[in-house]
Amino acid sequence: MDGVIADALGKLIYLYEKEYGQKVDKTRLPGHYLEEILPEAHKGCVREFLFRKDFFQDLDVIPDSQQVMRALHERYELFIVTAAMEFPDSLPHKYRWLQEHFPFLHWKNFVFCGDKSIIQADYLIDDEAKNLLTFTGESIMFTTAHNMKDDRFRRAENWQEVAQWFL
Amino acid sequence: MDGVIADALGKLIYLYEKEYGQKVDKTRLPGHYLEEILPEAHKGCVREFLFRKDFFQDLDVIPDSQQVMRALHERYELFIVTAAMEFPDSLPHKYRWLQEHFPFLHWKNFVFCGDKSIIQADYLIDDEAKNLLTFTGESIMFTTAHNMKDDRFRRAENWQEVAQWFL
Repeated sequence: MDGVIADALGKLIYLYEKEYGQKVDKTRLPGHYLEEILPEAHKGCVREFLFRKDFFQDLDVIPDSQQVMRALHERYELFIVTAAMEFPDSLPHKYRWLQEHFPFLHWKNFVFCGDKSIIQADYLIDDEAKNLLTFTGESIMFTTAHNMKDDRFRRAENWQEVAQWFL
Repeated sequence: MDGVIADALGKLIYLYEKEYGQKVDKTRLPGHYLEEILPEAHKGCVREFLFRKDFFQDLDVIPDSQQVMRALHERYELFIVTAAMEFPDSLPHKYRWLQEHFPFLHWKNFVFCGDKSIIQADYLIDDEAKNLLTFTGESIMFTTAHNMKDDRFRRAENWQEVAQWFL
């Protein structure tokens, strides 16, 4: 969900710049999580932002994910699997965000979990190497800032590329 | 979770008897869901109870589940998988209930989903035939009122029986 269909990084940067009055140097982001490029004294803010109850409720949608997911939904059995269990108060917000932006998906196909190694599917499109490594189907790394230097997986640069392969 | 470690049926009966001023005839429960044995005009109350935000927060623990789960946790990789996605506001309550009664489990091993067919594991202990039928590992039906007449699965009558097999 985050980094693939929901732009959590965009909101983290927005909150950081607004509340700390400093610009994030985005040229340093490739290959790094946001907290890795923040001043030492500010690193903790990322977790603090993520734990805010409403953090996940108004994230931007990653470009083209809605149209491509809608088309995939017509031809495949599609599940949204998000490792959000660390933030239990976020779960209803994540649910409503999915209902708002992906209304064609049924709640039966939402999975909120911690460790994704329990998921059984043919393909996993994910931004986190740790999830792709334990997956028993075919792993596809969805490009986002922090994973740009990882060359261990087949890669989707954007949703148009996902569409080309699967549709 | 419900019917296996959390006594949702017990709370449904409690609420029904309290709010409708009538006794549930428990001799009619074997082989039935609660709503099936309620008067026609009252059947809707079960879903209404389940949708209450706090329904899941104070359910009783099914006997012996804590001790047996703790022992299983030491020898197996144990996940709690609950098909609670229909009730999104219940998710934080379910999380806190698990933390309170099963504090030895990590949130990484909680899964809140809709359709359990996406779960990959060696064993599934569940009260619902529909979950056991799609499971690709070994299915074990945990006995509760509504499933008592179903003979399609290996059956665990209680947590002591689970302990005998796995410990």
